[in-house]
Amino acid sequence: MEQTLEILDKVNSPEDLKTLSLSDMDKLAEEIRHYILKKVNTTGGHLGPNLGMVEATIALHYVFNSPVDKIVFDVSHQCYPHKFLTGRKEGFTNPDKYYTYTGYTAPEESAHDWFKVGHTATSVSLACGLAKARDLRGGKENIIAVIGDGSLSGGEAYEGLNNASVLGSNIIIVINDNDMSIAENHGGLYQNLKLLRETKGQAECNFFKSLGFDYYYIDEGHDIEKLVSLFQRVKDLNHPVVVHMHTIKGKGLDVAEHNKEHYHWILPGELDAGYVPVSNGEDYGSITASFIESKIKEDLPVIAISPATPGVSGFSPEFRKRAGMHYTDVGIAEEHAVAFASGIAKNGGKPILAMMSSFVQRTYDQLSQDLALNSNPATLLIFWGGISGADATHLTSFDIPLISNIPNMVYLAPTCKEEYLKMLEWSVEQKEHPVAIRVPSNGVISRGIEDNTDYSILNKYKLEEEGSDVAVIGLGSFFELGRKVKSALKEKLGINATLINPRFITGLDEELLNSLRKNHRLVVTLEDGVLDGGFGEKIARFYGSSDTKVLTYGAKKEFTDRVPLQDLYERYHLTPELIADDINACI
Amino acid sequence: MEQTLEILDKVNSPEDLKTLSLSDMDKLAEEIRHYILKKVNTTGGHLGPNLGMVEATIALHYVFNSPVDKIVFDVSHQCYPHKFLTGRKEGFTNPDKYYTYTGYTAPEESAHDWFKVGHTATSVSLACGLAKARDLRGGKENIIAVIGDGSLSGGEAYEGLNNASVLGSNIIIVINDNDMSIAENHGGLYQNLKLLRETKGQAECNFFKSLGFDYYYIDEGHDIEKLVSLFQRVKDLNHPVVVHMHTIKGKGLDVAEHNKEHYHWILPGELDAGYVPVSNGEDYGSITASFIESKIKEDLPVIAISPATPGVSGFSPEFRKRAGMHYTDVGIAEEHAVAFASGIAKNGGKPILAMMSSFVQRTYDQLSQDLALNSNPATLLIFWGGISGADATHLTSFDIPLISNIPNMVYLAPTCKEEYLKMLEWSVEQKEHPVAIRVPSNGVISRGIEDNTDYSILNKYKLEEEGSDVAVIGLGSFFELGRKVKSALKEKLGINATLINPRFITGLDEELLNSLRKNHRLVVTLEDGVLDGGFGEKIARFYGSSDTKVLTYGAKKEFTDRVPLQDLYERYHLTPELIADDINACI
Repeated sequence: MEQTLEILDKVNSPEDLKTLSLSDMDKLAEEIRHYILKKVNTTGGHLGPNLGMVEATIALHYVFNSPVDKIVFDVSHQCYPHKFLTGRKEGFTNPDKYYTYTGYTAPEESAHDWFKVGHTATSVSLACGLAKARDLRGGKENIIAVIGDGSLSGGEAYEGLNNASVLGSNIIIVINDNDMSIAENHGGLYQNLKLLRETKGQAECNFFKSLGFDYYYIDEGHDIEKLVSLFQRVKDLNHPVVVHMHTIKGKGLDVAEHNKEHYHWILPGELDAGYVPVSNGEDYGSITASFIESKIKEDLPVIAISPATPGVSGFSPEFRKRAGMHYTDVGIAEEHAVAFASGIAKNGGKPILAMMSSFVQRTYDQLSQDLALNSNPATLLIFWGGISGADATHLTSFDIPLISNIPNMVYLAPTCKEEYLKMLEWSVEQKEHPVAIRVPSNGVISRGIEDNTDYSILNKYKLEEEGSDVAVIGLGSFFELGRKVKSALKEKLGINATLINPRFITGLDEELLNSLRKNHRLVVTLEDGVLDGGFGEKIARFYGSSDTKVLTYGAKKEFTDRVPLQDLYERYHLTPELIADDINACI
Repeated sequence: MEQTLEILDKVNSPEDLKTLSLSDMDKLAEEIRHYILKKVNTTGGHLGPNLGMVEATIALHYVFNSPVDKIVFDVSHQCYPHKFLTGRKEGFTNPDKYYTYTGYTAPEESAHDWFKVGHTATSVSLACGLAKARDLRGGKENIIAVIGDGSLSGGEAYEGLNNASVLGSNIIIVINDNDMSIAENHGGLYQNLKLLRETKGQAECNFFKSLGFDYYYIDEGHDIEKLVSLFQRVKDLNHPVVVHMHTIKGKGLDVAEHNKEHYHWILPGELDAGYVPVSNGEDYGSITASFIESKIKEDLPVIAISPATPGVSGFSPEFRKRAGMHYTDVGIAEEHAVAFASGIAKNGGKPILAMMSSFVQRTYDQLSQDLALNSNPATLLIFWGGISGADATHLTSFDIPLISNIPNMVYLAPTCKEEYLKMLEWSVEQKEHPVAIRVPSNGVISRGIEDNTDYSILNKYKLEEEGSDVAVIGLGSFFELGRKVKSALKEKLGINATLINPRFITGLDEELLNSLRKNHRLVVTLEDGVLDGGFGEKIARFYGSSDTKVLTYGAKKEFTDRVPLQDLYERYHLTPELIADDINACI
């Protein structure tokens, strides 16, 4: 059915919304839901979270006066309905504009957006800051944090709640309780939310009240009239309040309501194609899951851990079922995940914690204090590390500086399936080191021969092809780029370059590096991440006082936002041709 | 009064404790308290927290069978009584051994210690890991986390509690509720703890119950008999429990009970000297406080923020009183502190967040996502950054790699009082950049002339003294070392070196660096922190493909533990003589 734009046509800002009748707003919700489905089916994106927030967002904008009143969304991936109502509806109704707006709040797009954030659990603290600044200048506007879809399990959210409740002035925390994270929710808090839903907010044992909040419950999170009525009641209150709102993730799309985890985020075309199960093709997720299952069968005390992103690392619902007590989802709680893994390792277990590169940055202190300082033999798998065309909020190019400058950490960069499996095997067996493995992000490459390296001899680089004049060190995912650079050097400059696969990010093979001085003028480093604080700089420091020159390749220190990967490669000179030209100019 | 060792003499391990009568244990508590006071008065250290834990620790070791049963302390600075009972009493009774043991738990010292941790809020997650590993191997031991003294406000503690409550097996969380952090506690949770204390644990609105815990309250946290009875009751339970225990920080020392913040940690000799108010001498704390007060008088919306360490940054009780709503202590909640500051800056306020170098590492993701990605003009003051002889848990040499590799951050390194004040002024006035200032850790140096630099022109280094052949770049606290290196070069090698004060940690002055190539063979960098991921490596990378050589000086990537500073300087070649020798060998 093609939907008209009957009501949506009239709504270009929250102001326009305020002239609508309730039945018009109900119709508006239908229209918005229709276009979310259509757009996301074309481009891919966060589906379930946004379908669940349609009515609540309409009611918020009907009652409050954005942008004077300020609304902070968290996770901001549930802001699509907000974008419809704040001047950006064409990003959903006009296919030519589908890629105009980001899928997160973005102050550069609209005065109704306050922060560019995509990681979870941030809104309460940020809103607290907005409120404090308001109080300092004697302002009166409402400050609203909308938090949910798993965000409540993050420590930052709790620190924010604990401070917001004693702010002593207006702040409204809207809990979007859809009983889900990306996968199902985990943790004691969610049992309390369940109790509160079941008692319609009446249970005495109440997490929010225990933190000191004035508390309101609404069961009808998709009833605009009731939502409006409650929001009007809490508007302009002079103290911190929590509005606990029960919504349905995927609301209005039957298949999404019944398969909430899968429809959290969909690929382009999935709705037309129907339910698409996860592909059975080999990827590093499935390789990882198979490895862990084989260890479980060997009766080893392995335990796979995910901070609410099991799909990333091959921990499918079927895997989780088979793994039983050998699998734990800790919810969106990366700090806990790292300390938990350290504790398991200390007591003889073999934890394998799988995280996305973008989210490992939530755990620096835990990596340093809880894990590395204690040298506990936990295994961390860092997925998706590398330069990418992602949103600025989900960049994956910072994990090398983050992890590799922490003492005692062993950070490994496999270049193929065989190395990955050997490193995994070694990491799980050894008892000396906290180990992180940067899972290749350039697809599964098999070299067809087993890796027999003893990784307990740390920082031993692999001399893959011996040449002279120029040595190319290709780290992890960029080893293949190194191969191509070697070819380009041969072809363009007649140089038979040396090719090195360092495998260890966290240390220098001084013997090998020293040996290169004999017959190499130049060492070239290639790393799939930001240069600042990374691998190449350490090579540059090593050769700093010698005659050997060093050229380092990787990303510039910058937040990029949905810049196509090929453009970034051009920008950073990450093609064999550009690198060969640079080398030619240098030697 | 000299105390005898009547009971303590008999106690060399927890086993010995189990043979004692209750009255013997009471006497033991007296003896332990006596020697804590005597030792800490000599060496300095954490006083109040340990005086508060004497009886509880005796009762824990009487009831549980450490090290089979495993106790994790958090903050581990409250572990002194535990050390008395686990073979390390001589560290307190024998002045010759006063420096033998660290002030934190340390697995290398004793089988009764599980983790080396000094940052807060870690114990529940770590204990959860111990418990999970126990369950995987079918073990039956008790796992106990002792958490308190401010640790409960940290997000990691909440993430841990939220997961511990659904563990499904034995874990005992002992809340040491002394109603204090380092300074007074802040946040809604502490009101709930108060309510629970006032109702003797009977209030229905209960934070711990809301998270799903079986909950026990004990008001008599210094009554060994009652403590023993309660611990016996929860021992071997097959599900997660919270024991909420009311203790008195500073218990047994009148002056400490009545001035809890001051006696949290004391200097050597303070007890003999009586109450020593904070010195009125000029330090960067007092300079900072005066600056903020002057801005408050100008009616600017400045707000000083501390994550529970106000003393570090000059935020004395008197300052806090005068600052009124222009001061906020967020409790030990560094993540919130950074996001909160970002929110304040976004809404027109001028936040000045002061943190210790060691604790800023709890905030990487907030610095990156909440602050830097949004380019909000908050000011962060990083105190005590630099190489130090501190405990491994409180090292302060990692903040440069942590902060300076985040895009958009401006990290400044003043070398004197005048630069510090000018940078502060600029940071508070400007609206473009998140700014961190590395407060000098080498004492207040005044150059006597006002700094008139316009810091809005980023990454402009200051050429302090022009010379040739060798250029010395002395960053921040190490600028004075740079001066001395220049002198040594003159004296030993007759070289008139160039001396540069970079001031910006986060970017390169390419113009200046390029100009050095003309008549300098070597560039030397000096930074007061770890080399890996730091400032010098960026200089090495910059010159990597040129003929200019680079020598970088700073700390090695390692966790050091109470190594005297001068030894570290020798180890890392951080003396003018050693550096001059290296330069001589290099050129």
